[in-house]
Amino acid sequence: MRTHSLIVGGAGFIGTNLVKKLLLNGNRVTVVDDLSRGSKVFLDVYIVQNDIKFLEFDVAISCDEAFKIAMDLCQVDEVWHLAANSDIPAGVLDPMVDFKNTFLTTFEILRSMNKFNIKTIHFASSSAIYGDLGHTVINENIGPLQPISNYGAMKLASEAQISAACESFLQRANIFRFPNVVGVPATHGVILDFVLKLLKNNNQLDVLGDGTQQKSYLHVSDLIDAMLVIVKQPVVKKMNVVNIGPIDEGVSVNWIANQVIGKINPNALIKYGIGNKGWVGDVPRFTYSTELLQSFGWKPKLGSSDAVNKAIDEILLCY
Amino acid sequence: MRTHSLIVGGAGFIGTNLVKKLLLNGNRVTVVDDLSRGSKVFLDVYIVQNDIKFLEFDVAISCDEAFKIAMDLCQVDEVWHLAANSDIPAGVLDPMVDFKNTFLTTFEILRSMNKFNIKTIHFASSSAIYGDLGHTVINENIGPLQPISNYGAMKLASEAQISAACESFLQRANIFRFPNVVGVPATHGVILDFVLKLLKNNNQLDVLGDGTQQKSYLHVSDLIDAMLVIVKQPVVKKMNVVNIGPIDEGVSVNWIANQVIGKINPNALIKYGIGNKGWVGDVPRFTYSTELLQSFGWKPKLGSSDAVNKAIDEILLCY
Repeated sequence: MRTHSLIVGGAGFIGTNLVKKLLLNGNRVTVVDDLSRGSKVFLDVYIVQNDIKFLEFDVAISCDEAFKIAMDLCQVDEVWHLAANSDIPAGVLDPMVDFKNTFLTTFEILRSMNKFNIKTIHFASSSAIYGDLGHTVINENIGPLQPISNYGAMKLASEAQISAACESFLQRANIFRFPNVVGVPATHGVILDFVLKLLKNNNQLDVLGDGTQQKSYLHVSDLIDAMLVIVKQPVVKKMNVVNIGPIDEGVSVNWIANQVIGKINPNALIKYGIGNKGWVGDVPRFTYSTELLQSFGWKPKLGSSDAVNKAIDEILLCY
Repeated sequence: MRTHSLIVGGAGFIGTNLVKKLLLNGNRVTVVDDLSRGSKVFLDVYIVQNDIKFLEFDVAISCDEAFKIAMDLCQVDEVWHLAANSDIPAGVLDPMVDFKNTFLTTFEILRSMNKFNIKTIHFASSSAIYGDLGHTVINENIGPLQPISNYGAMKLASEAQISAACESFLQRANIFRFPNVVGVPATHGVILDFVLKLLKNNNQLDVLGDGTQQKSYLHVSDLIDAMLVIVKQPVVKKMNVVNIGPIDEGVSVNWIANQVIGKINPNALIKYGIGNKGWVGDVPRFTYSTELLQSFGWKPKLGSSDAVNKAIDEILLCY
């Protein structure tokens, strides 16, 4: 029997890449997306060919309806929960954004999974749940967990809900703590932001913060590979929490800005802001341990700098 | 100027004890409570004498209205957020309970505090956020945090929201991680449960689980003292997280059952259940470090066994 994967948020940046890979692997795929950030365009080729079933629903509002249709197709074996706000500053300005799109999606998905007797969830969490731990090396068991954005808070809240559900009805939960992920079809993020700004005004690139923020970046292709490696691990505990990220220490915003102007207009001026945070809730620097993931035999094909450069090229091809 | 304290959940078990203490300390006190678990009876003497202002509102639904009335009395200096579901098994059966009464109360309180420019919150969190860490000694910085009940999940989610709010608008947040608290006017808990059962049927006491669950118990008078000691600490970080609990290793459910029958009917039969969890989400045993709290000079006046015995006597006086 083919595994029936229900991908909530499957029309977004990471979702569309995941859909492609699961289809290649022979899974039966149903996508639920409210198209608030994602786009059906990314999936049209599969929808037209009837390779996937696409359901336009906002699971924060009508999750049961969407799940019922998917279940009527055939028993859902696993839910991939990628539905979330991905714009951290938007969630700082208005707490309703992360509440509805990140917290409530998880709450309603878990209720529907319980109702329809679906026992396996794969959840896109985030390094943002760790808050600002300074130079501490961040492994999966570290504490305290004090997120500094509503985005991070609602991701942590989602993990907590899943943890409690493992005690009552879930059989398996994989919690992926994502790093910054780059590639296409990007819907947000520093690279897309820089490219769009510079395409609009060729002569100057405005950078939020002083450019010293250093972060690691993973290409979406490596992220998808990592998730599928984690999913294949034997079940030891019901809930597996795994950091996903590159092995290097990352690159600075300043370095990224220079790559982008190098590819669009090397004579453009870079204008920096003040402080080492791009916005409230931005974590300026952290060291992310991916030892657990590496112990599964996974290694990224691209380091941060190659991932960023590939993503810039891919984004430029789209605009 | 007297400090104006707004106590949400101030008609509950811990709330009423806090109200009394803050009045003794000379604070101006406004209580908001939806009376779902608390009772105005506990506060009537203060309401009649006009010592406190009582506002019956469910902050999950109409927080701004309640806060506006309190602010019209005079600027609120601090919010004590004690509004929550306190019945863990109820929240396992229906996730809406902890969602609305524990998570959403925090969400709406923070929105109102932001709106009305109130900068200080004191929040009743719980040892339940730690989940089941086995024999690990639990200090405030430990990880991972994997709660095993919706109650614990929504308390952790509340902490996460407060943490994010500290980054954007809060100036001070004290997070108290409560142990099992005993005393009157109890609204739930093992002691009240045992007393009521035995008063109903004098000959037999049914115990959930095999009675080996060992937990520490703090008397509510010591809890209130501890919170006020923590609140008086100088501001070093915006967010202070402190475990509150007795110093001893606690007592078993079996021991409590014997104390209760000893006081009501020494000849009663104790009938045990199976397993060392009273319910899904019950944490059978944990070791709670209160070193941080002790470093502030606080010590409980009563250990677990004295606290339990005092609470049994107090509850018996009420029935």
